[in-house]
Amino acid sequence: MSTADHPDLAAVAHVNEARLWQRHMDMAAIGALPKGGVNRQALTAEDARARALLASWAQARGFALATDAIGNLFVRRAGSDPQARPILTGSHMDTQPTGGRFDGIYGVLAGFEVLEALEDAGVATRRPIEVVAWTNEEGNRFQPGAMGSAVFAGALDLAAMLATQDLEGISVADAVAETLRATPGAFRGTPGFAIDGFVEAHIEQGPRLEAAGRTIGVVSGVQGHRRYAVTVVGEEAHSAATPRRARKDALIAAANMVSALASALADEADTVRFTVGRFDVYPNARGVVPGRVEFSIFLSHPELAVLDECTRTIHATVAAHQGPCTADVATLGERAPTAFAPAVMDLVRRSAAALGLSQMDILSHAGHDAMHIARMCPTGMIFVPCLRGVSHNEAESATPADLAAGARVLASTLVAMAERPEGDRGA
Amino acid sequence: MSTADHPDLAAVAHVNEARLWQRHMDMAAIGALPKGGVNRQALTAEDARARALLASWAQARGFALATDAIGNLFVRRAGSDPQARPILTGSHMDTQPTGGRFDGIYGVLAGFEVLEALEDAGVATRRPIEVVAWTNEEGNRFQPGAMGSAVFAGALDLAAMLATQDLEGISVADAVAETLRATPGAFRGTPGFAIDGFVEAHIEQGPRLEAAGRTIGVVSGVQGHRRYAVTVVGEEAHSAATPRRARKDALIAAANMVSALASALADEADTVRFTVGRFDVYPNARGVVPGRVEFSIFLSHPELAVLDECTRTIHATVAAHQGPCTADVATLGERAPTAFAPAVMDLVRRSAAALGLSQMDILSHAGHDAMHIARMCPTGMIFVPCLRGVSHNEAESATPADLAAGARVLASTLVAMAERPEGDRGA
Repeated sequence: MSTADHPDLAAVAHVNEARLWQRHMDMAAIGALPKGGVNRQALTAEDARARALLASWAQARGFALATDAIGNLFVRRAGSDPQARPILTGSHMDTQPTGGRFDGIYGVLAGFEVLEALEDAGVATRRPIEVVAWTNEEGNRFQPGAMGSAVFAGALDLAAMLATQDLEGISVADAVAETLRATPGAFRGTPGFAIDGFVEAHIEQGPRLEAAGRTIGVVSGVQGHRRYAVTVVGEEAHSAATPRRARKDALIAAANMVSALASALADEADTVRFTVGRFDVYPNARGVVPGRVEFSIFLSHPELAVLDECTRTIHATVAAHQGPCTADVATLGERAPTAFAPAVMDLVRRSAAALGLSQMDILSHAGHDAMHIARMCPTGMIFVPCLRGVSHNEAESATPADLAAGARVLASTLVAMAERPEGDRGA
Repeated sequence: MSTADHPDLAAVAHVNEARLWQRHMDMAAIGALPKGGVNRQALTAEDARARALLASWAQARGFALATDAIGNLFVRRAGSDPQARPILTGSHMDTQPTGGRFDGIYGVLAGFEVLEALEDAGVATRRPIEVVAWTNEEGNRFQPGAMGSAVFAGALDLAAMLATQDLEGISVADAVAETLRATPGAFRGTPGFAIDGFVEAHIEQGPRLEAAGRTIGVVSGVQGHRRYAVTVVGEEAHSAATPRRARKDALIAAANMVSALASALADEADTVRFTVGRFDVYPNARGVVPGRVEFSIFLSHPELAVLDECTRTIHATVAAHQGPCTADVATLGERAPTAFAPAVMDLVRRSAAALGLSQMDILSHAGHDAMHIARMCPTGMIFVPCLRGVSHNEAESATPADLAAGARVLASTLVAMAERPEGDRGA
């Protein structure tokens, strides 16, 4: 049988490990940091340079470029059916201030590698395949993160996001305008258009694939999280003079709460994520019994029912340990769990199996653009390992072979999705 | 009999409750906080304004002003014997960042009230009586506290203290120079001169007088204390991605330590004082598992053997709760218990009894400048009640009547001490 009958095999065969790796190194040079990492924050000059570089590669291939009002950048390889809705793939190109060379950019470059492989193989897909670079996934300079994909999916309001300012008072609107000035391509205006599916490749940002010795993570979803702020109010008192029974020590109460919460939320399966990351004591003076403590709780789990149960535990545990103080639990935010489309997971599984790659189903603990797009169409993700699970860190590392393996699975998956007839999403 | 034969009675009779109260309110306006407290930290602009106000009152009375190289401020009412060593009284004018209106300043203003009462009564004392405002008792901006009295008594080295810096890198030397620029008076140079006795009036900063329904506390001594810094080192990690068993969460470990210490050190008699006043988390970001926590321990008790036992408990409890982290307990300082002079206690007791005031012997849990001066000469302290024992708190409160009662006992005690012949300290 020829590859013309099996465009997925043709595409896979033309995925080029060395080219994909070189693209990563070329991108890592933009915003390069001394320890090997990257500072390429959203809508900065570095971001604009990365977009221009991607655009130059796209133009060299004759792919169409487009942008939208939140700055999302699309690279389109046309399909054979002019009426068919496109399949989207991609991720983000922005980084944390001391980020790594693979977080986000891998999904963009793996998608672009698939387009190039299809060109090299000379095969057509029925649907167009578009590679997207979503604006501002990291949410550092402008909050919240995953801004471009959320606006695209209608989860965030465009006007509100454009009005958002960074610490220097520069708005997203101005930063997008400045960035797009340097980016060629058609302007699509308001973000969001009909798509038939989305697949995002990404490094795992955790240690599980490496620990299990697997190359491909078939991502089942993104776990939900809830964020709380706990305020414990006691009474400031002299540390040497005030008897214990006359104290309202906010720190002792808060320590009892954190200690009890850590025990109460320690599930045997180790799936619940419970973190107290901020803990602020007032007045925080050696000679004063603390009168007030504020601490954050980050809670995550893939199941809504467990999140609900943990929430009840948090409220009950805080109340039970307030002692002579008073305590309040405020909800700062929450994210519902995302389950990816079983049909897409199945395509990823079958693609990996056909390629002889080790694989495992895996839940994403971190948030990704795909969680927003999953509300629009069948969506999935492909994880590849990263060294020791280290991410959001200059030391972030991944191997050329693993990156190429993920790109091959992506190619096979995308081609299969792009061949599906209209109205059949394989569900 | 006339008051000329009984200068103590004359002085007592002229103690003016309304004037003493107004002086407190005038001082409380300097560094006043919204909730009624005071932020007048040592060697700040507010401290300088308080000194200038005291100096203006002293100058209006014709009292001599003097300062020394650590910034201690002295207000001297001359005695009839030019050779006689002076009797000192006073306390401090600095506060905690959210301090009250009476801690420290009461001892200065009660002393000054005695000088004014003696003036109003027109009686002379054999020895000079000097009111002192010791520099930096609270030890917040510059450590350690009780700096001025400790340098005066030779317990701390002048040069080392002058070189001490605050968090902004400003030295005590520079801050003292700046403060003294705004303070009139002779400069005595190196701190420390021969004195015949010291009496410090102070609010109790604890609830015992109020609970017992007594007005005057005859202070028997200052309990000993020990100060520790505990450092817990774990590892920063992604709050959503890192499983519990892979974490080295420094905050959970520290919370477990503080919670266990609070239980282990809770003695039935409620005599042990255990306080964690500072608690600093790094990097203190909501999305990051804390990699490091540093917290302070303040421990005090009147008995050396109990302090030793508590110290063993602290080391054992910290070690037992470090979990996957490492922990270190460093000793920052310790203070041996102080016993005040029985002769001074006896004078205070007799003064209170003669004035018909309820009294009780009481041990100070808090440190005071008097503990350093007690190494130089016969020293004592007079406590008056404060509302609910609340101190180092904006809500700190005391009644005009109690403050005046303490000032009357102080007047009687000081006059008796100032009349004693050279070489007779009543021991």
